Amino acid sequence: MMRIAVDAMGGDNAPKAIIEGVVLAKKNFPDIEFQLYGKEAEIRKYLDDEKNVKIIHTDEKINSDDEPVKAIRRKKQASMVLAAQAVKDGEADAIFSAGNTGALLAAGLFIVGRIKGVERPGLMSTLPVMGKDQGFDMLDLGANADNKAEHLLQYGILGSFYAKNVRNITNPKVGLLNNGTEETKGSELTKKAFQLLSAEPSINFIGNVEARELLNGVADVVVTDGFTGNAVLKSIEGTALNLMALLKDAIKDSGTKGKMGAFFMKDSLYSLKDALDYSRYGGAVLFGLKAPVIKTHGATGPEAVANTIKQIHTMLETNVVGDLVTQFETGTIAPEVQSD
Amino acid sequence: MMRIAVDAMGGDNAPKAIIEGVVLAKKNFPDIEFQLYGKEAEIRKYLDDEKNVKIIHTDEKINSDDEPVKAIRRKKQASMVLAAQAVKDGEADAIFSAGNTGALLAAGLFIVGRIKGVERPGLMSTLPVMGKDQGFDMLDLGANADNKAEHLLQYGILGSFYAKNVRNITNPKVGLLNNGTEETKGSELTKKAFQLLSAEPSINFIGNVEARELLNGVADVVVTDGFTGNAVLKSIEGTALNLMALLKDAIKDSGTKGKMGAFFMKDSLYSLKDALDYSRYGGAVLFGLKAPVIKTHGATGPEAVANTIKQIHTMLETNVVGDLVTQFETGTIAPEVQSD
Repeated sequence: MMRIAVDAMGGDNAPKAIIEGVVLAKKNFPDIEFQLYGKEAEIRKYLDDEKNVKIIHTDEKINSDDEPVKAIRRKKQASMVLAAQAVKDGEADAIFSAGNTGALLAAGLFIVGRIKGVERPGLMSTLPVMGKDQGFDMLDLGANADNKAEHLLQYGILGSFYAKNVRNITNPKVGLLNNGTEETKGSELTKKAFQLLSAEPSINFIGNVEARELLNGVADVVVTDGFTGNAVLKSIEGTALNLMALLKDAIKDSGTKGKMGAFFMKDSLYSLKDALDYSRYGGAVLFGLKAPVIKTHGATGPEAVANTIKQIHTMLETNVVGDLVTQFETGTIAPEVQSD
Repeated sequence: MMRIAVDAMGGDNAPKAIIEGVVLAKKNFPDIEFQLYGKEAEIRKYLDDEKNVKIIHTDEKINSDDEPVKAIRRKKQASMVLAAQAVKDGEADAIFSAGNTGALLAAGLFIVGRIKGVERPGLMSTLPVMGKDQGFDMLDLGANADNKAEHLLQYGILGSFYAKNVRNITNPKVGLLNNGTEETKGSELTKKAFQLLSAEPSINFIGNVEARELLNGVADVVVTDGFTGNAVLKSIEGTALNLMALLKDAIKDSGTKGKMGAFFMKDSLYSLKDALDYSRYGGAVLFGLKAPVIKTHGATGPEAVANTIKQIHTMLETNVVGDLVTQFETGTIAPEVQSD
């Protein structure tokens, strides 16, 4: 059995959406044991039966506005902290949470711990390529505010490993997000990262890629520092949300004709919304830790929870993290990062 | 008379789109003298008459794939270089080009020259706020690949000055692009910039803003380093372009019903396209130079050229650059940036 520690109390719709998602996932994955951390009475409200389920009761939880590191240190009985502790103690194989992102990052770093050799784990999501049933992995999306070139090299290695093993992509194309495609372009950071990525034999580095091309599927893995990655992800989300809202308003303001048009176009508009919804690929992975630590949006619903459980199932089935641990520890891939 | 030096040969549709735009602008602004640099015979093809126009013939031009700094140094007779030289020599008051962006930056820095006290001029555009007839100014959008916190402070001052004087906004709100809104968030660069911006009395600093909120009009001026600014702008553009293409495909694929719907919704879809088109605000300003140096998209059409001429007219009319020169030189605003 795979054992997933679930922070049942994290997220805006917890525990309802989380448990309903677990109920959906249980049907598809009878080989998963779900360890549900949180208020037992509330969890039971949404649970169908207790097959393959363990409830570990706790009253404490981390709130979305808690200061991450403090919360992890002080709320020792919080559902998220207990879930992370279970992984550390070898009682669970992975953690799932829709709670406070910063706190989950802190729990991942301080409780689960880094893979030896990976200095700065990165936050990675599979984002949608527009008009294709295909995605690309991007990291770091904001686990770090400042990165060194060596970290970017490691993100290339980590992302490539994930694309190969979890997403089944042969020889994934790794691109470096930059402000131009030419080799000579970029900041001091990206110029140095370009050299390191070019010299790394374990990945298929295709060079610089620009933000304008990301959603066109220019690369299977896109490497960037956490500050830029965070800004780019939020820019994409903000633009998409604004355009959808604008389209809705335009339909509303255009009177009967517009509404009639929208009625006829209903299917097209839904397909557009679907194309933007990248929760079908699962959640964000805090990648570079000793076990899968996975985060979904706080406002997540049951389907997105179930998709994320599916993703964790694949990660455990393929042993992507276990293989990474071995390869980094034996030095098969990735140079040591020099600390300053 | 205001005198604008026009690089007639820059851009994908030059000189046709450029000259047609000049012809449009001439009608509205009889107080502008247009100095058109480029191939005389080609320019004349699209010109209506020679009222308020001087043609300065040259056969040389800078291509879009020329290496910027080399091109500026070697092609001394290029239309863009001659236009910049005219400003330097006091024969023109501003430059307009739709050509090679890097070359225009280089021409601005090396020929026109920086305002004394402004260490790193930034590229600034007015971007659209969705659903409102309002925009926000963002800089640096990529003139620099690496910025210091002091540069970000200067961008706050420059952007605020532009919003006030050219866009007529009272007490413009200045935001710092960051990976969270809390004061403690950010990279080393943004944390330091936050302190400097907070301490600057000449601007209305509202704190950190996130990329997700930009198109909602969270601030009138958004300050960021050139690498992030470039990535964010291209992310917004890429997402918008992809969504519009996807919407088009969805309509095409949805058969008669979808096409009928789209027909009824034609006006709504056009209004959506309009909302995205920020060329109505003019072009990108390389801000911090001794004269207005303005760039539009290479693929620009006559209307966008005319809008940009209108923007330059306002910049000259309000003397925004002249006032900045005075204020920086007398030390009324903005501390000196320490070079490293």
